Amino acid sequence: MKRDFLTLKDWTTDELKEMIDTAIRLKKENKNNVRHHLLEGKKLAMIFEKPSTRTRVSFEVGMYELGGYPLYLSSNDIQLGRGETVKDTARTLSRFVDAIMIRTKGHDIIEELAKFSTVPVINGLTDDFHPCQVMADVQTIFEHTGTYDVKVAFIGDGNNMAQSWLFGAAKFGMDISVASPEGYECKPEIVAGAREVAKETGSTIELVRKPIDAVKGADIIITDTWASMGQEAEKEERKKIFSGYQVDKALMDATGKKSYFMHCLPAYIGQEVTEEVYESEASIIWDEAENRLHAQKAVMLKVMS
Amino acid sequence: MKRDFLTLKDWTTDELKEMIDTAIRLKKENKNNVRHHLLEGKKLAMIFEKPSTRTRVSFEVGMYELGGYPLYLSSNDIQLGRGETVKDTARTLSRFVDAIMIRTKGHDIIEELAKFSTVPVINGLTDDFHPCQVMADVQTIFEHTGTYDVKVAFIGDGNNMAQSWLFGAAKFGMDISVASPEGYECKPEIVAGAREVAKETGSTIELVRKPIDAVKGADIIITDTWASMGQEAEKEERKKIFSGYQVDKALMDATGKKSYFMHCLPAYIGQEVTEEVYESEASIIWDEAENRLHAQKAVMLKVMS
Amino acid sequence: MKRDFLTLKDWTTDELKEMIDTAIRLKKENKNNVRHHLLEGKKLAMIFEKPSTRTRVSFEVGMYELGGYPLYLSSNDIQLGRGETVKDTARTLSRFVDAIMIRTKGHDIIEELAKFSTVPVINGLTDDFHPCQVMADVQTIFEHTGTYDVKVAFIGDGNNMAQSWLFGAAKFGMDISVASPEGYECKPEIVAGAREVAKETGSTIELVRKPIDAVKGADIIITDTWASMGQEAEKEERKKIFSGYQVDKALMDATGKKSYFMHCLPAYIGQEVTEEVYESEASIIWDEAENRLHAQKAVMLKVMS
Repeated sequence: MKRDFLTLKDWTTDELKEMIDTAIRLKKENKNNVRHHLLEGKKLAMIFEKPSTRTRVSFEVGMYELGGYPLYLSSNDIQLGRGETVKDTARTLSRFVDAIMIRTKGHDIIEELAKFSTVPVINGLTDDFHPCQVMADVQTIFEHTGTYDVKVAFIGDGNNMAQSWLFGAAKFGMDISVASPEGYECKPEIVAGAREVAKETGSTIELVRKPIDAVKGADIIITDTWASMGQEAEKEERKKIFSGYQVDKALMDATGKKSYFMHCLPAYIGQEVTEEVYESEASIIWDEAENRLHAQKAVMLKVMS
Repeated sequence: MKRDFLTLKDWTTDELKEMIDTAIRLKKENKNNVRHHLLEGKKLAMIFEKPSTRTRVSFEVGMYELGGYPLYLSSNDIQLGRGETVKDTARTLSRFVDAIMIRTKGHDIIEELAKFSTVPVINGLTDDFHPCQVMADVQTIFEHTGTYDVKVAFIGDGNNMAQSWLFGAAKFGMDISVASPEGYECKPEIVAGAREVAKETGSTIELVRKPIDAVKGADIIITDTWASMGQEAEKEERKKIFSGYQVDKALMDATGKKSYFMHCLPAYIGQEVTEEVYESEASIIWDEAENRLHAQKAVMLKVMS
Repeated sequence: MKRDFLTLKDWTTDELKEMIDTAIRLKKENKNNVRHHLLEGKKLAMIFEKPSTRTRVSFEVGMYELGGYPLYLSSNDIQLGRGETVKDTARTLSRFVDAIMIRTKGHDIIEELAKFSTVPVINGLTDDFHPCQVMADVQTIFEHTGTYDVKVAFIGDGNNMAQSWLFGAAKFGMDISVASPEGYECKPEIVAGAREVAKETGSTIELVRKPIDAVKGADIIITDTWASMGQEAEKEERKKIFSGYQVDKALMDATGKKSYFMHCLPAYIGQEVTEEVYESEASIIWDEAENRLHAQKAVMLKVMS
């Protein structure tokens, strides 16, 4: 039976750790010019209802490196839900390709697509979740710290990144503290879901108001843009609301230990992060960006082979 | 000398049947993971002046599966007839690629392109013809019935699909009856051309007004959207005009035998077809969609190798 | 250390001639179906802030023919300088691909991109330079004349083509005369830079007002569109200003010898060139277009392997 990669929730800790192991191995072999054609002959449809540099390039390069074929479909090329129902697009694409990656808006759209596809569906970002980014983040943390036994502080909007990280922390047994302003917290049902998982792995999930309360003892401080794509209209209002949520040197120092800074990019310097932190030694954002490639190759191998 | 695939008219019955045989063989081998690199090193330029999921995906996947390279050019990428004349685009692309597939508007555009190209041109849809779709349809019919000795009923607009089917039926020796409302009939010169061909193969071409008069004894009922891309302005008017041309269970039953339903997609449920028929056992639309891939691979092999 | 291909200025005459030799050899071998997978496993990101048929197709086909992977990023896909700084795009792409080709506006953008990329950057056109086109032009001239010892006359706007040709002529030791209307001359600092180079190679660089003064003894007459992409608003005004700069048979004859006509395309017949010249035996524009492929393959091999 096919398995989709829509959220981390649906995969066991063992499975996810095995994917991280694969990602780390593929990355090393890549640097040593070992070529893998493990997905030779396989086709991946990539549907982008929102444009994205990193997701686009990492999936496309990943498929090429695995010997397969990435087929890029922008919202201009495919009229998902307008010219054709999601259900029919799912049934059509299932006849031509071996997996579908989609970056869309409502999480219900990807669930509908997965329901009617006979091939695996990979979540390349929805309004609720961004599991591939969290896999890349976890790989980066493990590479830099050598352990999953860390504390993560997420500063800012309780958006798809924060919500995915709740499950990421819970699944990998990490502690997490999310600091968000009032009205911008993670969805309660998602928090509850992650806490269910955390019970099994022993990780602590904490939601706080102030950044300073989240970062204590944190090995990793993560933030994200204050206004994601599609929220441009709220930009000025959000700047005011999130003004106390900037990651600066003082906040990094407040962890009380050597900590790393992460960001899924693109970043707005001077808003969610200062240039000083962004360009510092503690910033492992370029490794994080690169690991999109390796982590997603591991995900594709898992669901496609 | 190069040969273009602009309409079925220009190919003999033997050649077309050979392509169907190839398509069926390629499909079987594909399912058995037999890999063909028959077009290794070949490049196909694909020009889309109108977007399309099925045509795009099937040609792109087809070229990859044959070891060649598909090069996707949208109307944003190439300014056919605006930034550059069709004649010059033909001469330029002929220097870079081994064949050109184009989805355009006026059939005169593809004729101009073919005239000045030194490489074969494949019709991926024009206002007048859609021969690749008919090849996929014929393959689907042959796979389900085991014969070309069938009667096809086409219900609705005398558009590019109906007109291509006139030649498809004539070439393959099938009988066809097209039911269209007044003012929406197939072009007389195209009907006359198909009747010329039908004389040789013995097929019957019939044009009627009422759907009920077309379906009697039909093995296959085909319909298409009432308003194709570019006809959005006429949508409401067309809904009225075509209101009696819906394919429903009563019409399917009126064939008096076991019949199949076909549609080139995308479909508008509740307009040209009821959900009951669309989702029924008689509906072979997903096989039809998939066969775009196999039939076009056969066409590409024929003109490119 | 990586080397970028931003202008011809930064490469020695020997290096450039070696690239032309490679281009000619690759072209011959291509015609004989010799396949080269010299860039197997390599990825090229291609950023197009302005669309282009020839640049797009030639780079994409070139990478495929060399066994590598071309990744097409249009301005819809990547928000260079808007959604993400040029600096961060450079750092991100460097983690995923082996080289970046960009067609952009300001030459400062490509310089910024090259500064922060750890992989080579290739200029696919900027407001100031178009070195890949000049490489294709030089290859075409050498193929048709068998020598670099020629005189080139450039008629029209002192734009990126004229400016690149100043360096092209200087580097390859050709003589060049550029005829431009007042206010549309090449930038003085670029002329000065080319004259520095010309001193070493002995080529003559001349700037004149009237076309007739440029073409005397010319082996090659080159022109370009009067209004490039982005200058549509000035179109009518430019038509008046450039009205005396049309390349017609009289101007071709005024060279006093057998001469060739070249144009980087797309051309506007009846404006910068008459149909008579454009379609004449002297016109080697299709070889010139084709050589984009071969010359750029040589450039890619040089910077990527």
